[in-house]
Parts: sequence; structure tokens; C-alpha cells
Amino acid sequence: MAKSRGRLYACLCLAAVLVSFLVGLLAGWFINKPLRETPTSHQSVRQELVSEMNAENIKSFLRSFSKVPHLAGTEQNLLLAKKIQTQWKEFGLDSVKLVPYDVLLSYPNETNANYIAIVDEHGNEIFKTSYHEQTPDGYENVTNVVPPYNAFSAQGSPEGELIYANYARTKDFFKLQRDMNINCTGKIVIARYGKIFRGNKVKNAMLAGALGIILYSDPADYSAPGAQPYPKGWNLPGTGVQRGNVLNLNGAGDPLTPGYPAKEYTFRLDVEEGVGIPKIPVHPIGYDDAEKILRYMGGRAPPEDSWKGSLNVNYNIGPGFRGNDSFRKIRMHVHNINKITRIYNVIGTIRGSLEPDRYVIVGGHRDAWVLGGIDPTSGAAVLQEVVQSFGKLMSRGWRPRRTIIFASWDAEEFGLLGSTEWAEENAKTLQERSIAYINSDSSIEGNYTLRVECSPLLYQLVYKLTKEISSPDDGFEGQSLYESWLKKDPSPENGNVPRINKLGSGSDFEAYFQRLGITSGRARYTKNRKTDKYSSYPVYHTIYDTFELVERFYDSTFKKLLSVAQLRGTLAYELAESRIIPFNIQDYAKALENYAKNIHNLSKRHDKQLQDHGVSFDSLFSAVRNFSEAASDFHKRLSEIDLNNPIAVRIMNDQLMLLERAFIDPLGLPGRPFYRHIISAPSSHNKYAGESFPGIYDAMFDIENKADPHSAWKEVRKQISIAAFVVQAAAGTLTEVL
Amino acid sequence: MAKSRGRLYACLCLAAVLVSFLVGLLAGWFINKPLRETPTSHQSVRQELVSEMNAENIKSFLRSFSKVPHLAGTEQNLLLAKKIQTQWKEFGLDSVKLVPYDVLLSYPNETNANYIAIVDEHGNEIFKTSYHEQTPDGYENVTNVVPPYNAFSAQGSPEGELIYANYARTKDFFKLQRDMNINCTGKIVIARYGKIFRGNKVKNAMLAGALGIILYSDPADYSAPGAQPYPKGWNLPGTGVQRGNVLNLNGAGDPLTPGYPAKEYTFRLDVEEGVGIPKIPVHPIGYDDAEKILRYMGGRAPPEDSWKGSLNVNYNIGPGFRGNDSFRKIRMHVHNINKITRIYNVIGTIRGSLEPDRYVIVGGHRDAWVLGGIDPTSGAAVLQEVVQSFGKLMSRGWRPRRTIIFASWDAEEFGLLGSTEWAEENAKTLQERSIAYINSDSSIEGNYTLRVECSPLLYQLVYKLTKEISSPDDGFEGQSLYESWLKKDPSPENGNVPRINKLGSGSDFEAYFQRLGITSGRARYTKNRKTDKYSSYPVYHTIYDTFELVERFYDSTFKKLLSVAQLRGTLAYELAESRIIPFNIQDYAKALENYAKNIHNLSKRHDKQLQDHGVSFDSLFSAVRNFSEAASDFHKRLSEIDLNNPIAVRIMNDQLMLLERAFIDPLGLPGRPFYRHIISAPSSHNKYAGESFPGIYDAMFDIENKADPHSAWKEVRKQISIAAFVVQAAAGTLTEVL
Repeated sequence: MAKSRGRLYACLCLAAVLVSFLVGLLAGWFINKPLRETPTSHQSVRQELVSEMNAENIKSFLRSFSKVPHLAGTEQNLLLAKKIQTQWKEFGLDSVKLVPYDVLLSYPNETNANYIAIVDEHGNEIFKTSYHEQTPDGYENVTNVVPPYNAFSAQGSPEGELIYANYARTKDFFKLQRDMNINCTGKIVIARYGKIFRGNKVKNAMLAGALGIILYSDPADYSAPGAQPYPKGWNLPGTGVQRGNVLNLNGAGDPLTPGYPAKEYTFRLDVEEGVGIPKIPVHPIGYDDAEKILRYMGGRAPPEDSWKGSLNVNYNIGPGFRGNDSFRKIRMHVHNINKITRIYNVIGTIRGSLEPDRYVIVGGHRDAWVLGGIDPTSGAAVLQEVVQSFGKLMSRGWRPRRTIIFASWDAEEFGLLGSTEWAEENAKTLQERSIAYINSDSSIEGNYTLRVECSPLLYQLVYKLTKEISSPDDGFEGQSLYESWLKKDPSPENGNVPRINKLGSGSDFEAYFQRLGITSGRARYTKNRKTDKYSSYPVYHTIYDTFELVERFYDSTFKKLLSVAQLRGTLAYELAESRIIPFNIQDYAKALENYAKNIHNLSKRHDKQLQDHGVSFDSLFSAVRNFSEAASDFHKRLSEIDLNNPIAVRIMNDQLMLLERAFIDPLGLPGRPFYRHIISAPSSHNKYAGESFPGIYDAMFDIENKADPHSAWKEVRKQISIAAFVVQAAAGTLTEVL
Repeated sequence: MAKSRGRLYACLCLAAVLVSFLVGLLAGWFINKPLRETPTSHQSVRQELVSEMNAENIKSFLRSFSKVPHLAGTEQNLLLAKKIQTQWKEFGLDSVKLVPYDVLLSYPNETNANYIAIVDEHGNEIFKTSYHEQTPDGYENVTNVVPPYNAFSAQGSPEGELIYANYARTKDFFKLQRDMNINCTGKIVIARYGKIFRGNKVKNAMLAGALGIILYSDPADYSAPGAQPYPKGWNLPGTGVQRGNVLNLNGAGDPLTPGYPAKEYTFRLDVEEGVGIPKIPVHPIGYDDAEKILRYMGGRAPPEDSWKGSLNVNYNIGPGFRGNDSFRKIRMHVHNINKITRIYNVIGTIRGSLEPDRYVIVGGHRDAWVLGGIDPTSGAAVLQEVVQSFGKLMSRGWRPRRTIIFASWDAEEFGLLGSTEWAEENAKTLQERSIAYINSDSSIEGNYTLRVECSPLLYQLVYKLTKEISSPDDGFEGQSLYESWLKKDPSPENGNVPRINKLGSGSDFEAYFQRLGITSGRARYTKNRKTDKYSSYPVYHTIYDTFELVERFYDSTFKKLLSVAQLRGTLAYELAESRIIPFNIQDYAKALENYAKNIHNLSKRHDKQLQDHGVSFDSLFSAVRNFSEAASDFHKRLSEIDLNNPIAVRIMNDQLMLLERAFIDPLGLPGRPFYRHIISAPSSHNKYAGESFPGIYDAMFDIENKADPHSAWKEVRKQISIAAFVVQAAAGTLTEVL
């Protein structure tokens, strides 16, 4: 009995020993095993983030942030910066700082108004354009509305004959000069806004020898069919005038401190040496005034329909169209003042828990030309709601794996200055540590569907996330944003996915993507590209861009802004939180294949010259093939790594993070030292648009008219060689060991 | 009884359970705990590496590699590359590749020899310099000895009066032109080798308007007191001539492919557009020939002693020193041919076990002007022994934490071409992943003591390692290399440590340090700087630089070469193997303080102008203070991190690795786009020397003679601002979160 009980004890004891050992073993194991977030928890936190976001909040931020003007460099915009700083702190960010720079801004002279006059044969000004836009209802007491002007215009009062140059594009001047044999030298050019960035228009006019350029908004370009002018609808009224800077910075940031941050101690160029500042006066007018000028100055029938706007006037204006007996001239009065002015970015951070030295940046500008209902506040309000929602997650103990940086940029309207100066100040750290940059400028420019521009690395992530966000579109109840987007705007190459375009410029991602090579993306709601041919949105950069504009005509439920917030927010979340950075390199390979095919196709119209000058695209195609193989190999390796080995994970993530950087050539593109991304750059003819293989494209542009074909084709060969090298070198970064 | 036995059982059982639990706990703990190398094993492997290295092996590699000439671009040098490749494979490297480039080289015309002639008043050549050096004993049957020439000289046969320009330094031409009022335009300049890089001499002569320049070795600069000419001693014989390229590449690498690797598909400039190729003929001669030329051409007494060499002639040669009745001219005949030629680097790797994507590079060149006993084979033989010793460690199962890359560069003598092209081809990967570059060119230029030039980050590591290496010096038996070095060459600033100087250029570390910002260092044995005033070593770049030269006169026991091998090898070991990269940032802070003080002191001679032009160094000093604080904070954090947290370790290591990169400005130094290190660069007046804050230094150089003082001082302000920004930004990279 004792014996058997002894045996029982022994057995029990042995069992207990074994169990204890196992328990101990497991305890020991788990003490050391790093906690691994499960896919489920990862996804559920993302869904929490999505459902935290609220249309009413966005509406109320928009209302609050757009009551008064927030022009860069003004007291109001500093107050808004402080308000945002305070709110971000309240939301729970780890740190929120105001970061100042002293940059060159340009304002109208308060005591010497700008205008354009028609001058009769005696020199009398028989017509003058208006100084101000008509104030919209409800804003009668708002002060500090800056009158319409083109920032950084040269000062001056040139007088001369008027020449109509359509959109003042490169091809418009070619038509004037080559087809119509019209010389613009010593004349004043009038051109309509639209199609391309206004700075390019001014540059073209300068190159054509013009004394000055008048920019106006033609109803053909700033009216949606069937809509009424504001406040009855979203169209541009006749007194509305588009403000905007006319710099050709090519990514330099502050014109006086190219390449370096505009701090107190920084060396500054003289204004005459400043980067991209036009040497001729420029001034914008609305279509009421334009109609009068064009009517008084007009003459013969327009050359062709494509040059006709939709005013009830004759668009064919050029020298000799009127007899000397009725000779009239145009006189410009432009007195804008350049001034080094303090601006403020707001920079807020959530420190990453595991990899604090890896950054995801979400930034958008705060400064507005006037009230900025859409531009930028529909972006700033969305950013505010994104920050607030991350704050709520944090209040429940969540913290992202990587650091998230939120930025409210200043002086975007003056040439992307706040974002570029900060990028310059922190270039090294940002290049070494940034996963991605997500832009948060205007969230809406139409109420039709989503519009996305991003690095190919982000395509899959955008598709994945839009599938989890509800569509805000009428008729798509219960469907995803992806579904309505795909239905309304399928990719032209591959109709199975929605369209995503290349990044150009015109907003604050520029320094991050085009100069530093940080993977970037932007998303907003847009108009129907098939039916709505107007540029941007009709009241862009006018006093009529108000809270009411958004509320009445663009997004009365604020659901579209909410969708944009959800997309921008979850992009930041996934990039900051996923163990493996959610980039797809094979999509970059496909994009490179397309870009290479496109540029090669473009070259084919010069088949004979290609042969004569020994120009071949073989090296580029070969490099692209090598890149594709490297991309496949990389993703295969990625699928095989041990996710529990933190160094192995970091090694792969480093290669993902740094891939976009591999496309950066420190020597920059020809003549554009701060556009360094060899795969895509803002078009040399339109800053807003992205051009793929821009070095090759520019070398081939108008090559049939080059004075020295030999050296022109030599430049093409050089640019192909550079592109091939850069693609090949990028493939080289996808290997573990050199 | 049963009860008490029961209790006993229970107690025993409980104890067993507890013990098992604890055993299990510990087992579980250790299963998961990463193995940590102990300091002892780390150190003992390093000592194993040191004791693996063997003087006899180095001697035998030197003997084997210097039997025949190995001029870049020749069959013999390719054969040597293959031999090295085979040996490295045998030593056990993971991969060894030959990496080719097609670069511009320059060779004498085999059917049209170069020479210099004295021409009498009838145009007859009454004296001609010799074509060849006298062949040393034992090498009578060696073929393919390239005759003395200056690679990349322009072709031509200019004729003119001769002007003696001392060392042809900037200050020598200032003396000629300003003090002596001698115009060199249309004249032929003769200058002695020494003091500065020969390419700078040629550039100075071109700027002075010379038609051509003759370079000769004066005994004053190429003889050690008391030594005999080779083969009786190590001095230069009268027929010995220093070869060498005369490019002013400023770091561009292959002159036809600046910024990009010279691959088959790469776009090439025409030779006329090539970077840094002189536009005038240049030819080198020995002192036998120089004596004759100077004697025939000489005239009045020399202006001052500092211009006198030690030939028995009159050094004061200039126009008008001789009457017209004895008018003689000099005629140069230079027919060198530029040729795009294939060169080969040998690249071998040991894959890192834990961080394969982190690289330590050890490279030195293989190509020699002729036999290259010292230059480069005393370096190549040392590299071979280093590789062999690492191979032996690997054969015992050892593998470094990080990847080690060994490189045998080609065409160093033609402008650091092999190393620069490889740096260009792999720039992105190297910048993102390289811990350090250790150079292995010539290991000896004198038999006195150690000479080290490196980034301040490496000072402490060099000191630590030299304390563990035995001194090879007579009279220092049983003492360390550190002790003899400290005794013989203490630091001028701080006599408690041995002297370490700034990196300049003149060897293959250039692209890695000056362009890419990879922490670099070099170490070799050198002469006594106090007593031995000759340049380099006397038979440098002559046929007399042989195995026997090293064996008989420099290092008969090969112990000095062994010390150098042990230092280079253990540097690579520590950088590849230490858990925390052994860099000391506080030493960089101290160096920056010194550099800032020095440049500020230099400015003080212009005190009034500094005030007049509003030039202040305050921003620079402030940035340096901020850097010092950041360095202290960093090292404090470093001392507190959890060494068992691999991500925490990698984060700190990334910051250490990337610190030197923070000193790189992608815009480069003024006029020198490939010298991008803002803290130090090769001097604009002597490529061999390092200049700190080179942008500021160059802006202030000779500023008292600038035509436009306003713009000259503006440039100084700009360069101070850039330097201050770069130092400040570097401090910014030392923080965990932005």
C-alpha cells in the first residue's frame, strides 16, 4: 500500500516535474520571444483608425480653419500654426514644434495697386482692370484679403502692342513664331490660364522676348457646363481672378537659398540672382476684364478653333491686325514687393516603438491665397482629423512600430517653400530614414471619383486600402471606394485596376520625391476627366474658394473628404506599422518597362537620325530587364525570410525603403540640379505634369529644329546612358551582398 | 511512517518540481537568447589574425608580384589580376570577381619617342634628353618597360624660351609673375618635382600661359643625405625619371565618363572635352638631363636660396637673362597617345554572417608604372597576406558579423580610375551600406615609423590596435608599435598620442572618402619627417622601384610590412566584427573645433575686411558646439543601450556608419563637383594634401588680390554658411528621432 502509494507519489511527482519543466521552458521561451503582432490585431487597429475618422470633425476643422485669410508670412497664418500646434498636442502627439524659416515672399504694394490699362493713341488710359474681386456674402468684414496678383512678378510698367498666345505653352509660341511668323519681342503677351503651370507660361513669354505677360481665366477653362458662377454654383464669376506664384524654381525652394535651409545664419543670394524669379512683369485678371481688353484689341478671325476661348470676342490679336488709325497699346502696372519673411511649419511626431529611426511623413500646407476652402484647407482639415484619430489610438496604448511625422507646411503657394526648406534642413536624416511621404494638400477638386498619383511602389497598397474604405459616391452604397473608383476611372493600360498616374509637382511632396527620392503619394477627390475639361477647379486661388463652396457644391455630407482622410490615414498607418514595408517592387519594374517603351516609341519618329547618330535604347531595355529580374528575386527572398529575425527583417526593409533613393542622381537633371529623380520629374513644359525619363525626353524635345543636330543627338545618347545606368544601379541595390 | 514518508516524498517532489521549473526556465531563456560573442573570444580571434600574418609570406608575395611590369591596361596586369583572383579563391573567399571598365589611358607612342631638345640659333637640336632609364641589374630581360612619360600630356612640339619655376606651385608662379615680373606666356616652363602633386604644377603652368612644362627630379628633393644612388642605396640615380599622370580630375575618375562607371554602354565625352586633361605638352626628365638643360640655359644668380635645387648649375632662368647672341630655345617632343583601354579590378568578398548588408572595404591598387616594388606592391603583398589570414580564420569556421570586401584596383596610376569607376558603379549601395574603407597602397616609404591618415572617427581604434601590435623598430624590442610611433612622431597638438593627419588624396580611398563620405583610413611606414625632407621616396615611379629596393634598403626582415599588414588587417577585423562599430564621434567634434579655429585664425589677417564685408564665423563655431554636444549625448546613449536588442544596436550602428556621410554635400565644392566632403578635401593647390573647410579656405585664398573684393568676400560668407549648415546637419543625424 505504502509502496504503491509511493509509486503513485513518484509518478505524480515525475509528472509534476515534467509539467513544471515544460511550463518553465515555455515561460523562459516567451520571456525572450519578441511579441509579434498578429495580422488580425494589425488589421483591427487599422479598422479602428478608419472608424475613428468622422465627417463632422472634418467639416468643423474646415469651418474653423477657413474663416479668415491665411496668407503665408502673415500674423493670421502664424496664429493658425499655433492653433494647430495646440490641437496636435491635445491629440496626444509626442512632440509638436513650430519650425521657422526666413524666405523670400512677394506681396502687392499696398499703396500702389497693380492694374492693366488700355492706352489710346494719345497715351491716355481709356480702360483699367479692377483691383479687387467682389467679396462673397458672409465675408464682408474679413480683412487682409490680398488682391489678385502674381507673386514674384518683376516690377514695371511696360507698354506695348498686345499679342494673344493662347495658353502660352511651348507649342503655342511655336505656332505664333513658326507658323504665324509673329515676333513677340517688345510686345505684351496675353494668355489664358490653364493646361500648364503658370510659371511655365511666364518663362515661355520671357524666352519669346515679351515685355510682360497678362494671365486671365477664360470661361472655357474655368466653367463646368451647366453650372452657375459662385455663389450660385461652383463656376468662376467674371470678377474672379486666379492668384499664384510665377517662379521657375525647379525644386530649389526659397529662391535666395537654393540647396540650403533659409535659417538666420544662411547666406542669401541677392534678389537679382534669385532662382527662377521672372524678369518681366506678370499680372492676372478675370474674364470680365479680359473680355474688354480682348474686344478693344481684337481684329481678324482666330486662326483655328483650338485657340478660341469662350468669350464673345475675337481671339486673334497680334501686331498689324489693326490699322494705325485705331492704334492702341496695353500698359501694365505691377508693383509687387519681394520681402524676406518668416514662415512657420508645424512639425508633430509620434515616436515609433520599435524603429523610432524610421519615418513616415504626412504633410500638407496651411497657407492659403485667401480663405482657402479647398486649397489647402480641405487638405489641412483632413490632416487634422488624421492626427486626431492617431491620437485616439495612442490614448488606448497603441504606438506605431515606426515614427510618424505630421507636417503643416507654410508658404506652399510661394513655391513649396516651407516643405522644401524643411527637406533641405533635414535632408540627410530624411534620406537615410524615411519610408514614405504622403501629401495632404487639397482633398477635393471635383465630386466624381478618386485621383491618385504615387510611386509605383505604392500601387498595391493603395488598391488594398481603397478596398476597405466605403465609397462615398451616390449609387455605390455598400461598395468600396476601390469599386466606384475602378468603375469610374479604370487604368488606360490595364482596365482591371483603377488609374494611378505619375507624380509631377505643384505640391509639397516635390522636395521629398523629386529631390530626395523618398517614395511619395497623393490622393484626392476629382472631377470626371472625360466630361470636365476645365483646369483644376473653377474658383481655384480666388476669394470664392470658401468653406461654403465645399459644403454647398463639392461635398455636402463631407463623406468624400472622409474617404480621402481614411485613405491618407491608413496609408500612414500601414507604412508605419507593417512589419515588412508594404512596397511592391515588381510594379516599379512594370512601370519602368512602360516608360522605356514610351520614350522609345517617341524616338521612332526620328528613325533615320537614330541610325545616323548611333542612338540605341538597347542599354535602357537591358537595364529594365535586369531590374525586373532583381525585383522578382527580391520578392522571392522576401517571401522566405524569417519574420522573427529582426535583423533579417530590417535588412529587407532597408532595401525596400532605399529603392526609390537609388533613382536619385546627385548631379541632377540637365539644368535642374534639384530635380534628381531620373525616372520621373516635373515636365520642363508644365511643372504640374510628371514626365518619365525626363532627361531623355527633354534631350529629344523639338530636336528636329536644333541648330546642331550632332550635339543634340549626342545629348540624347548621354541621357539614355544615364537612365540605363541608374536603372541598373537600382537593380543592384536589391541584393543582400554587393 | 507512511505519512512522514509521504511528506518527505511531497517535499522532494516539490523541490524537484521547483528545480525542474527553474531548469526549464533557464533552458527556455537560453534557447531564445542570442549567442553573444564574449570580449575574450572577440579579442582572441583578433590575436589569432595577427599571429597568422607572417613576414616571409609578404616577402614572397612581393617577390612574386614584382618580377615584371604591371602597367594598367597591359596583358601582364590582367594576368596578375587573374593570379590574385585564383589565390583569393584558394584562400577561401566566398566570391572573387574580375570587374572590367573601359577607361581612357595614355601611353607613349612606341614609334615616336618623347624627348626634350636644346635648339641653337639655327634651329638645330644640340642636345636631346634620353629616352630610357638605365635598366637595373637582374632586369635586363624584362620587356615592356614603359619609358618615362607623363600620362595624359597633350601632344605637341612646342619651342620657346625656358623659364625656371621652382616647384611650379601657385606661390612660385606668384613670385615669378608678381615679384619678378616675369611673364610665362608663350614660354616653356621647367620645374622640379616635389612638394605638390604634379597635376597641380601642370595646371599652374597652363594658367600662367606656358606652351609646355618640363618636370625634373632635383637631387635636393630625391636624395636622402648620406645615401647612395640605387643600386648602392635608395637614392635616385641621375638617369631615374619619375613617371606619373598629370590630370586634374578632382575626383572624376575616368576623364570621359565623369560621374558614371565606364561600362560598355556608357556615354563618353570626346577626349577634347575630357575632365582634367592638360592642354599643353608635359614631359619628365632625370637630373642628369636636367643639369645639362639648366646649365646651357642658365644666366644670372638665383633670386633666393629657397629656389635653389642642388645641381651644380644656376637656377635663375628667365627671358632676357642671356643676350641675343647666345640665344637658345627649348623644344619639347611629346607624342603620347590617349586610348580607351580595358582595366580590371579584382573584387573578393567574405559574406557577413549577421549583417551581410554592411561592408568593410580593404582595397589597394595592383597596377605599377614599372615593377612597382614599393608602389604599389608593398601594399598589394600586404593585402594578399591580409586576405590569406582572414581565409585561415574562415577555414576554422569563423565568419565576420559584417561583409568584408577586398579590392585589387587597376589604373590607380592613371588617376585612381579602377577604384573610382567601381565607386561610381556601386555608389548607392556603398553609400547606404559601407562601414569603412581601409586603403592598401604602398606600405612603406621610409623605415622610421608609422604614418596614419584617417577620419577622426578611427583615431581611437588605430591607437588601440597599434598598442597590440609589436613594434618592428630597432631599439623597441618588446614594445608596441604604438610606443615606438608615439616616441618618434607625437601629435603636434597633443603630445600624448601619436600624430594622425587628415586624408588628402593621391590614392584609391579618394572616391570613397571625398565623394561618397565613407569613413576611410590609410597606414604605412614612413621616413623621419624632421630629417628627411625629400618628397615621397627617392626612386618613386622609376624603374628602380624594385623588390630588391625594399629588401635591401627599406625592410630586410619584412617586419615593417608585417606591422602594416597587422594594422590594416585588424582594422578590417574590428570594423567588421565589433558589435558596436568602433568609431569615436567625440574625436570628430575635437577635430571640427580645431579646423574651425584654424580657418578662423587664417581669416584674422584680414580683420578689417571681415568687418567691412560682414563676415562672421559665429555660425560655424555655434554649429561645432552643437555637434560636440550631440556627440557627447550620442556616446552617453550608446553606453546605455541594451546590447542584446539587435534593433537597438543596429539603430546606433546606422548612425555611426552614416555620420561621415552627413558631411557630404551633393552639390560638391565650388568647381569640384566630385569633391563633396565639406570638412576636408584635397587641397586645390596640392592634391596630395588635405585641406580642412576647403570651401572657406579656397574662397579666402589670395583674397587680397581679387579684382572684386565685394563678391570675393560674399563667397567667403557663402562658404562659411554652407560649412555651418553641414556641421549642424551632421549633429542632427546623431538623434534617434528627428
